[in-house]
Amino acid sequence: MLRTKITQLFNIQYPIIQAGMVWASGWRLASAVSNAGGLGIIGAGSMNPDLLKLHIQKCKAATALPFAVNLPLLYHGIDQQVQTIIEEKVPIVFTSAGNPKTWTETFKQAGIMVVHVVSSSKFALKAQQAGCDAVVAEGFEAGGHNGREETTTMVLIPLVKAALDIPVIAAGGIANGRQMLAAFVLGADAVQMGSRFVACLEASSHLNFKNKVIDAIEGDTQMSMKKLTPVRLLKNEFSDKIEAAENRCASSEELISLLGKGRARLGMFDGNLEEGELEIGQVCALINDLPSAASIVSATWNEFVEEKRE
Amino acid sequence: MLRTKITQLFNIQYPIIQAGMVWASGWRLASAVSNAGGLGIIGAGSMNPDLLKLHIQKCKAATALPFAVNLPLLYHGIDQQVQTIIEEKVPIVFTSAGNPKTWTETFKQAGIMVVHVVSSSKFALKAQQAGCDAVVAEGFEAGGHNGREETTTMVLIPLVKAALDIPVIAAGGIANGRQMLAAFVLGADAVQMGSRFVACLEASSHLNFKNKVIDAIEGDTQMSMKKLTPVRLLKNEFSDKIEAAENRCASSEELISLLGKGRARLGMFDGNLEEGELEIGQVCALINDLPSAASIVSATWNEFVEEKRE
Repeated sequence: MLRTKITQLFNIQYPIIQAGMVWASGWRLASAVSNAGGLGIIGAGSMNPDLLKLHIQKCKAATALPFAVNLPLLYHGIDQQVQTIIEEKVPIVFTSAGNPKTWTETFKQAGIMVVHVVSSSKFALKAQQAGCDAVVAEGFEAGGHNGREETTTMVLIPLVKAALDIPVIAAGGIANGRQMLAAFVLGADAVQMGSRFVACLEASSHLNFKNKVIDAIEGDTQMSMKKLTPVRLLKNEFSDKIEAAENRCASSEELISLLGKGRARLGMFDGNLEEGELEIGQVCALINDLPSAASIVSATWNEFVEEKRE
Repeated sequence: MLRTKITQLFNIQYPIIQAGMVWASGWRLASAVSNAGGLGIIGAGSMNPDLLKLHIQKCKAATALPFAVNLPLLYHGIDQQVQTIIEEKVPIVFTSAGNPKTWTETFKQAGIMVVHVVSSSKFALKAQQAGCDAVVAEGFEAGGHNGREETTTMVLIPLVKAALDIPVIAAGGIANGRQMLAAFVLGADAVQMGSRFVACLEASSHLNFKNKVIDAIEGDTQMSMKKLTPVRLLKNEFSDKIEAAENRCASSEELISLLGKGRARLGMFDGNLEEGELEIGQVCALINDLPSAASIVSATWNEFVEEKRE
């Protein structure tokens, strides 16, 4: 047992949080992580309000333990998703990709804890000022959407920790107990893992994508679309096309047109490994198996405890 | 006391190494670090063979303890520098920015230990195969010249550690004992700090530059000149000009012409903070004072020991 500010705040057994990832984190993954003693998160980014409601209800049926919903604040129809989360009495919301001022008060008044995802201590302070209960500080090595300052986990966590009073959850570059302990040494009160939980039996991602993550080696990801919104992707035909366009200084309009619609679903959910967008972190180079969520939580925790003892 | 593969290999007291930085690491800094129980390094990158000889001789006069020379392999006149290092019986050489096969054998036959600086486990393996005694694995957050794969320290160190039999020195994002311990948890046998030893009394860098490093905050550095050789710099007028040129897809020729000659000296040694090139790591955001080299070694070590005990 290790009580941290985060295990106490969320009332969970282990300070291990599964990131709410588009096209990967449905009720199956979230409930499995929560049942294993971590905090599971449903990723609302790829769901309309009806589907989100269904996933929340199924998650509640599958676990009596705390879970959360990740809500990217940049999509349309956000009001309805907020309403759904409140109606369904979800205990914790992780918000990302937007201003924490907009919705934190609404959630807090409904008795819901709010955690905001940030990439700098400036944004972390804004989240604290907006009334958030904790932040996820996510380094440059993380998969998916990312900050413009490119600060890595090694540098970001001590900076955010020093700037805040509320607890700090470290994300980016963490897939095992050693990396978890390194994050704790840097000042984290918990870790959030994304890539590790993509290569997991209960993730709803396509098996093609999971296998691609397992096979990926060092240097296989890159930060893409810096002109639009920076996002870390596995390199493939699609990312090569974007890179070529960026290298000839294509306009934002051209990049948006190249991106098209539904690329993330095409890659991560439909399993089209060449034309789809495949969001993953640098740490995929360290991931070589496809275990259950419960195995990931226990293996990470056991390695963390063992390394801590040394 | 903590015996690691590196303290045993180099016969030093603490596994703390000062990076050999152009325009910062002369005999004064190197001998001060070695006298404090770490490993000091003379940066040959900004020296002609005569000046290098002088610095080596002064360093030997100032310390009876082991020290090293950092030799970037990409400059002209490298043969003469190699000759100087051998003649002066420097015990350890850190090579960087080139192929470890070219000179390792020559140094080894002269009884000199060789450490090569790498940014990936692929290059680390090549260094091991070339007969190097250890590697420095340097993450994306590090200052100065950097790798193209952009792998961060958090991900790089476990990968390099798993790939090699020889010891691994972690670099990039390390400026205090907590970060040093995090690097050890990730698998490092020692740490190398650059930015921390720039903001140091004995560094030969211009006071303007030292003060700029102390004042720098999160987000003040960026990876520049990716089309030529990626290098992490403090943002200033010069880096803004390069960025603007990169954003309009300027040719390599135009970038080389914009860069001109002597930018690094102009910025870091002459103290021209706007037109000069200022190489520093992301971790400058955590550096706020200008202590002696001995204070840096002891403060880092004491914090490391204290954190380890917790």
